[in-house]
Amino acid sequence: MQKPENHIFICGSTRLNGKVQGACQNKDSHDLVQMFTEEVMDRDLEGEIMVTWTGCVGICEKGPIVMIYPQQTWYGEVTEDDIDEILDAVEEGSVVERLVIS
Amino acid sequence: MQKPENHIFICGSTRLNGKVQGACQNKDSHDLVQMFTEEVMDRDLEGEIMVTWTGCVGICEKGPIVMIYPQQTWYGEVTEDDIDEILDAVEEGSVVERLVIS
Repeated sequence: MQKPENHIFICGSTRLNGKVQGACQNKDSHDLVQMFTEEVMDRDLEGEIMVTWTGCVGICEKGPIVMIYPQQTWYGEVTEDDIDEILDAVEEGSVVERLVIS
Repeated sequence: MQKPENHIFICGSTRLNGKVQGACQNKDSHDLVQMFTEEVMDRDLEGEIMVTWTGCVGICEKGPIVMIYPQQTWYGEVTEDDIDEILDAVEEGSVVERLVIS
């Protein structure tokens, strides 16, 4: 397994004890993880872009949260409709300004 | 809440359905998350270094896995004894070569 060029982390609101809580989960963040992963596969980018979900990052009011590294861009209130635009931006090294958490 | 300068992601081996499985978990990765978090607080670096655990990143045989972003350094087989050295490196912008997953 190669370390990916880009790593997309999606807050899944899960506590370490396995309990799923929080706003990201209520807003379908788990579906987002699955949909991002599938879209990366559809684009044949598994070697370049890795999708990983995370425990709560503590800004539930802005969830679902999607963090792009190493670009270090954080997006908030991400929906299914934003996936293509975010992945285009990751591929181009650009940013979807309207979703950025300032 | 500010976006951190450095983000430490630690694989917690948990599946999205809440099931905890895998080698990282067997090797006390959950304790590592807690210990990294406490050490960051002891160093008064909460604003600069964020610690977040993740779902399985798929290289269980090298776990526990610790990923440093935006530096984009991945460490494997991390133990409690490595925490100070890793945090020193994050603060300095350097790398603990002996732990790097190549």
